[in-house]
Amino acid sequence: MPQRIASKAEDFNRWYTDVILHTKLADYAPVRGCMVIRPYGYALWENMQAVLDRKIKETGHENVYFPLLIPESFLQKEAEHVEGFAPECAVVTHAGGSELEEPLVVRPTSETIIWSLYGKWIQSYRDLPLLYNQWANVVRWEMRTRLFLRTTEFLWQEGHTAHATAEEAEKEAFQMLEVYRSFAEDYMAIPVITGKKSEAEKFAGAEHSYCIEAMMGDTRALQAGTSHNLGQNFAKAFDVTYQDENGEQVFVWATSWGVSTRLIGALVMAHGDEKGLRLPPKLAPHQVVVVPIYRKDEERAQVMEAVSKIEAALDGVRVKVDDRDQFKPGYKFNEWEQAGVPLRLEIGPRDVANGQVVLARRDTGDKASVPMDGLAEAVSGLLDEIQQGLYDQALAFRESHTYPVDDYKTFQERVEEGFIMAHWCGSEDCEARVQEETRATIRCIPFDQEKEQGECICCQKPSDGRVVFARGY
Amino acid sequence: MPQRIASKAEDFNRWYTDVILHTKLADYAPVRGCMVIRPYGYALWENMQAVLDRKIKETGHENVYFPLLIPESFLQKEAEHVEGFAPECAVVTHAGGSELEEPLVVRPTSETIIWSLYGKWIQSYRDLPLLYNQWANVVRWEMRTRLFLRTTEFLWQEGHTAHATAEEAEKEAFQMLEVYRSFAEDYMAIPVITGKKSEAEKFAGAEHSYCIEAMMGDTRALQAGTSHNLGQNFAKAFDVTYQDENGEQVFVWATSWGVSTRLIGALVMAHGDEKGLRLPPKLAPHQVVVVPIYRKDEERAQVMEAVSKIEAALDGVRVKVDDRDQFKPGYKFNEWEQAGVPLRLEIGPRDVANGQVVLARRDTGDKASVPMDGLAEAVSGLLDEIQQGLYDQALAFRESHTYPVDDYKTFQERVEEGFIMAHWCGSEDCEARVQEETRATIRCIPFDQEKEQGECICCQKPSDGRVVFARGY
Repeated sequence: MPQRIASKAEDFNRWYTDVILHTKLADYAPVRGCMVIRPYGYALWENMQAVLDRKIKETGHENVYFPLLIPESFLQKEAEHVEGFAPECAVVTHAGGSELEEPLVVRPTSETIIWSLYGKWIQSYRDLPLLYNQWANVVRWEMRTRLFLRTTEFLWQEGHTAHATAEEAEKEAFQMLEVYRSFAEDYMAIPVITGKKSEAEKFAGAEHSYCIEAMMGDTRALQAGTSHNLGQNFAKAFDVTYQDENGEQVFVWATSWGVSTRLIGALVMAHGDEKGLRLPPKLAPHQVVVVPIYRKDEERAQVMEAVSKIEAALDGVRVKVDDRDQFKPGYKFNEWEQAGVPLRLEIGPRDVANGQVVLARRDTGDKASVPMDGLAEAVSGLLDEIQQGLYDQALAFRESHTYPVDDYKTFQERVEEGFIMAHWCGSEDCEARVQEETRATIRCIPFDQEKEQGECICCQKPSDGRVVFARGY
Repeated sequence: MPQRIASKAEDFNRWYTDVILHTKLADYAPVRGCMVIRPYGYALWENMQAVLDRKIKETGHENVYFPLLIPESFLQKEAEHVEGFAPECAVVTHAGGSELEEPLVVRPTSETIIWSLYGKWIQSYRDLPLLYNQWANVVRWEMRTRLFLRTTEFLWQEGHTAHATAEEAEKEAFQMLEVYRSFAEDYMAIPVITGKKSEAEKFAGAEHSYCIEAMMGDTRALQAGTSHNLGQNFAKAFDVTYQDENGEQVFVWATSWGVSTRLIGALVMAHGDEKGLRLPPKLAPHQVVVVPIYRKDEERAQVMEAVSKIEAALDGVRVKVDDRDQFKPGYKFNEWEQAGVPLRLEIGPRDVANGQVVLARRDTGDKASVPMDGLAEAVSGLLDEIQQGLYDQALAFRESHTYPVDDYKTFQERVEEGFIMAHWCGSEDCEARVQEETRATIRCIPFDQEKEQGECICCQKPSDGRVVFARGY
């Protein structure tokens, strides 16, 4: 048997860590709050990157690379930004054997270094929009860390765009939120709620922050991606103007947006079950694991010949053949189930004789014999079903753990059970009080909420719509 | 006219910087020795990464990600390694608002953090070999910096492998050197000399360092990639042993190998000419730039319709259509020549009428009319010719600037003119003296050199082969 993982039902947090460590997605590093992303986890990240990178380029963005180290004074140019990030910064004070004149911050995010250069590149309206993205590592010295969800260092993409008008910037922020929504739902098979962050929860330096919020397997919320309309805040802080068509100097409008390796944590927590990971086929490093079954050497030759044919037939599918001789098939079944491979293909001498294989679904556990003729179609059909099945299951789970609540007592009782849709007056005081008393935050003010008159869950003042409250990661 | 660049013949260094800045490969960053890689430069890097990543995976390696920050004490575990790298380190002393108990070094290379974990993962011979690679940023506080060639921060891939035997490690180091050689010659169109570094020039912590050395357009040498046999040095420093098939505990054998964004500098300096960049078709972000030519609106419609057909016909080729209305064709020709696009396609109303286009080669300047029928084949053929032509030209240049030299006086005269093939006794004293007196270093002890008895260029003691001396970057 592969190493046992804790029970998801009994100890979700330990289950989460066990799954990551035992399936070798990642390991702890000997540096506070840092992790190593191991081959299986990194292959998953590469598959996610490939899709996101394509979507980012299809929407007109170009990749660039800005420096890791940022002069400390840059961070201080935008008041809210420095307040938000300075406490989390790792600071280089010495280099090349001597003390630096000005300390350098290891980027916690790159707005300041990027906007320090946009002023040099943007002169006229013809230079706009500037649509840049970078794949990079960032460092944030967080108090509590957790594998993938909140690590001292993480990998992400960060888009940074500059526009001629407020409308264009707003449109861009929404466009990228939609890219994230479709990635989460169509590739990660995780349904998300799109919405706006409250003032208290928005990005330090943004005018408006938009987000996608997902429900994890313990009913808690995870912010899975954010897109910010930065208004003219950074343009003013770094004095970035352009000459418009009438010859006027105008401050530039900006957005930034990002998703990170945290999404791997989301995959684990949204789809995992008591047996371990369940990976969506579109992102799984191995979509199909082939386990050949044989006892004698002559059986081996016969079975492995059929396996070669299977690999050829499944061209274009990510197939892993587990031909390790030191493990029995049963051990392999357990190991690949724990690792969340969507589909297992078993083939033994009798299957070869009958011109068939056995396909076992990781999501439902269903097993069926399938003829070798038409195998590719059968596999492709099943992978689609599994992808859709994971999404449907996650959506049903979220819906059955989402509660419209109208009184604070029920709110307090229900807060551990999922998302609470409740009225809120819009005041930061109520938001803070609810958080203090229930540890639930406003995850977002959802976009697709119908207008509805009601009373704030906290102060009973009028409200014209419900927001999503939940305990979050 | 696009911005003028300095003359390559008159001021190679300024020409190099001008080419990079004016073609927007990169720009200076407001941090000492750092640069921003702009979209054109990053697209080039992405094309290089795609090929290298495929070759690295085809040779059985998996990608991973290790932390950026390394405890200072780790670096000190391998004596030569710390001596080599400590003086170049950027050090994080403060984080999260307070001073750290132990300073963290921003990785200058990752051997130490990686080997601190290999001990955890490697138990038995079944765990070997471990064949890992990572794409990452590294920071080295260099005294003199230069765009791409030597920057405080740079991007690279670093492979780190662990093996059961010395023979396997040596084979791996050679295999990866061959990957770099074929990448440099077949994709970058830069001929390289493969060889071994002298003891003085080898990687800090290696048993043997192997390298590919290229000649730049000013006849100076550039180390374009290195592959190191690390012996058991890091295994011993981090106490990494495995149980062999007889139950014995044995120290593990190691390699590491890397290439970096420095290769972009190599492309500029190996192929560039007085007009600017000349990019090899296999790596160029745009392989073909289409410049439509028209005066009146009705011409425009007609020409642009033909351009659409050209784009469709050239499916699979990286085509850039320059349809900017604010610039005249002549301006565009100059701009794209400076940017090194291998092939320019011009099309005007008369070409449309005649069912043809004009193709202009960047490498030779040759122009020819080509019928629209069979355009794809013509373009593909020309791109292959340009790729080969750039290689041939670089090889001829290197060969005509490589001199067998047998006396020190000629050596001193010739040292500014290229590679000098001279005998060397093998002593570090002679190596150091030559470097002090001529600023030439031993670039490598080449592999494909025939054995030949001779006398050391410096001390006249016996030598059994020539080595490559040159001034390097």
